[in-house]
Amino acid sequence: MSASLANAIEVHHLHRKEPCKIALVGFGTVGSAVARLLSERTGEHSLRVSHVCNRAVHRKKVDWLDGVHWTDDIEHVLDSDADVLVELVGGIEPARDWVRRALQSGKSVVTANKQLIARHGAELMELARRHSQHLAFGACVAGGVPVLSALQEGLAGDRLKKVTGILNGTCNYILSRIEKSGASFAEALVEAQRAGFAEADPTDDVDGYDARAKLCVLAYVAFNANVVPEEIPCQSIRRIAKVDMEYADVLGCTIRQLSRVAVDADRLQAAVGPVLVSKQSPIASVVGSQNLVVSTGEFGGDTVFSGFGAGGNPTAVAVVSDLLQVARYLNRPAAAGHRAVPTKMTISGDYEEPHYVRFVVSDRPGILAQLATVFAKHELNIDAVLQRPGYGKDCLPFVVTLEPCLASRLRAALDEVAHFDFLADAPFEMPIFR
Amino acid sequence: MSASLANAIEVHHLHRKEPCKIALVGFGTVGSAVARLLSERTGEHSLRVSHVCNRAVHRKKVDWLDGVHWTDDIEHVLDSDADVLVELVGGIEPARDWVRRALQSGKSVVTANKQLIARHGAELMELARRHSQHLAFGACVAGGVPVLSALQEGLAGDRLKKVTGILNGTCNYILSRIEKSGASFAEALVEAQRAGFAEADPTDDVDGYDARAKLCVLAYVAFNANVVPEEIPCQSIRRIAKVDMEYADVLGCTIRQLSRVAVDADRLQAAVGPVLVSKQSPIASVVGSQNLVVSTGEFGGDTVFSGFGAGGNPTAVAVVSDLLQVARYLNRPAAAGHRAVPTKMTISGDYEEPHYVRFVVSDRPGILAQLATVFAKHELNIDAVLQRPGYGKDCLPFVVTLEPCLASRLRAALDEVAHFDFLADAPFEMPIFR
Repeated sequence: MSASLANAIEVHHLHRKEPCKIALVGFGTVGSAVARLLSERTGEHSLRVSHVCNRAVHRKKVDWLDGVHWTDDIEHVLDSDADVLVELVGGIEPARDWVRRALQSGKSVVTANKQLIARHGAELMELARRHSQHLAFGACVAGGVPVLSALQEGLAGDRLKKVTGILNGTCNYILSRIEKSGASFAEALVEAQRAGFAEADPTDDVDGYDARAKLCVLAYVAFNANVVPEEIPCQSIRRIAKVDMEYADVLGCTIRQLSRVAVDADRLQAAVGPVLVSKQSPIASVVGSQNLVVSTGEFGGDTVFSGFGAGGNPTAVAVVSDLLQVARYLNRPAAAGHRAVPTKMTISGDYEEPHYVRFVVSDRPGILAQLATVFAKHELNIDAVLQRPGYGKDCLPFVVTLEPCLASRLRAALDEVAHFDFLADAPFEMPIFR
Repeated sequence: MSASLANAIEVHHLHRKEPCKIALVGFGTVGSAVARLLSERTGEHSLRVSHVCNRAVHRKKVDWLDGVHWTDDIEHVLDSDADVLVELVGGIEPARDWVRRALQSGKSVVTANKQLIARHGAELMELARRHSQHLAFGACVAGGVPVLSALQEGLAGDRLKKVTGILNGTCNYILSRIEKSGASFAEALVEAQRAGFAEADPTDDVDGYDARAKLCVLAYVAFNANVVPEEIPCQSIRRIAKVDMEYADVLGCTIRQLSRVAVDADRLQAAVGPVLVSKQSPIASVVGSQNLVVSTGEFGGDTVFSGFGAGGNPTAVAVVSDLLQVARYLNRPAAAGHRAVPTKMTISGDYEEPHYVRFVVSDRPGILAQLATVFAKHELNIDAVLQRPGYGKDCLPFVVTLEPCLASRLRAALDEVAHFDFLADAPFEMPIFR
């Protein structure tokens, strides 16, 4: 860069004394926590909330925010002189439309919308680049734990191979409650809802869609992979019963909802769902609504990040951190070419690993022989058969563990098992994570 | 920024097709790993090693680096058209002089030199700012674990209160060897030296100076505090004996070298040294040469980072990550004022917490009474007295644990104890970390 241009930037910069103007779109728990954090930053005058946009905004007004234009009309924000739009409304539309139009009108965007970035991150990033704006989304994964910035900045020099984590605090809260108190899934869910860790409709969390969206964002950041969420296999935690936690304990394990993605050339292996995990693993030690991410690099080995993954304040920390970074380089776009166009990758969720299968049967002689015959036909090697006492003959749970096998092969065997009339419930299988 | 200037940058940028030229100063383990990582980055052409500078450089030449100017004269590098100088020589001088001159001549600098940043970071950062250059030092703390970038970027939105960590892999290797194998300090040190985890002269590591320099860098990044390393109290791990690990075990603890710093208004509390830590703590689970850092923020709570803190490859990952970041914003300095001038803070290392004191005595009646009298005089409350069997009367170790007390008060009491003739060795005290 010529000295004169450097000077031009410097001069411009010196003239730009006014703070970076921020429009908060969505003023719920996270939005108001962001405003609070910004208003409490003593000695920091580079960021100022200029607009708050929310439906029925008159009910949202607070007296501790000065000089803010309150509106329920997004057009007022898009037409304004705000430098950065903070999108906190969630969902795909209209969030996507608003983010696109903000970028096109020369505003940078900070968002905590994982579904939006999981599905349209690459396209929106390209739009931001074309308009010399920033698009930051550090709050999309693990809330207050700065995993995305670490992968993008601090570990950028490594060749990342694998990212594994506990990305959904609701599932982790429920599973660690079942582990600790022996509650049923339904009881633990109600507890989570009462404690504010689960929504009235818990589908997104317990069925894995929330974690899957986060995993797509991680795959994008870690591997520059453009992934369609639906291509990642996703198992619910709804079927986990108290008896599974008891058998896990017998095996020296606990149960966690695990999200994992690994890259091998132009192929990804990814899955979301409950797994048995050794109690010795750092993953097992994550309790309550905490999050944990392990990234594995070819040169740096395993790096572990953990902390509070959700909640207004931790998420707001991530948003404000993004805002500080965007403000620092406002209108100074990064050098192009530092990130190639994301690669569309084929995805397999077919992991070869040991498995746990829980059967519930109406007991009679010969059951194990029949199951073992089907498993043998599918070349599945039984590792152990476990049966704890204290259950009635009509509804008897027992567990078979299998030596490492492809999940697809196990499922084929379980399809064949399905017609056996001694089954009191459909078999339930989980990987044993190593 | 006016649209025309944005365009000017864009045009300039498009013209700047040539990669960012990197001069490696110091071509040992880390330097050659950096070159290797850069040469193996497929599809990444934004960074190129243009110079390698090392004493007796002819012995360092490698055939897998193309188009490099090899030199043993730093003047060749400082006079060159290299964009970034990577300082990997260590020590204060001449590193400081070279970094200063590089910044003054319009080069950005990436360094892994913790002593340099601990002592002169604020001054060098100011110099970089004046010359519109970047100074990046992510490799100074915890090697491959991106703690500094996380504190600077990902957690920038929080108000950080405390940083605690295992920052020295050599000490952790030695202490976890004593814990696991029952080796003496001297034996574990030799093992660490053989395994390449300790230097021939281990002073910097085992006496805490290495961790203390890292703690200064953390205090600078987390609290913008300008700290003189010598003001942080620093205890050696040399006196830790097998018997201490046995008593720690009785107390449900292990022993780790802990580095900690917390801020309270314009006052810092900081210390480096061995502590007893509960086996339930994540800090206790750090074994071998791993590092772990816990940062505590007012809004985001505790965030934990762990991984490989040292070694050529992890450190090189940190250097290359810094290089990518610097190259991305080369000649595009960050907005001024995002970081205030570091504050000179007063430091106290006088923590009020429970303590462990190990005595070794020539046994006779009345010893405990004499010690208890001194402790009572200093208003120190004894929590427990522990004495394991199996030791001779002449050289009998036993342990006193104390309820929370100021370290200074305990030391005053131990000074008074020192003249008792029943002591076979000077008392050895450690905090019990909670």
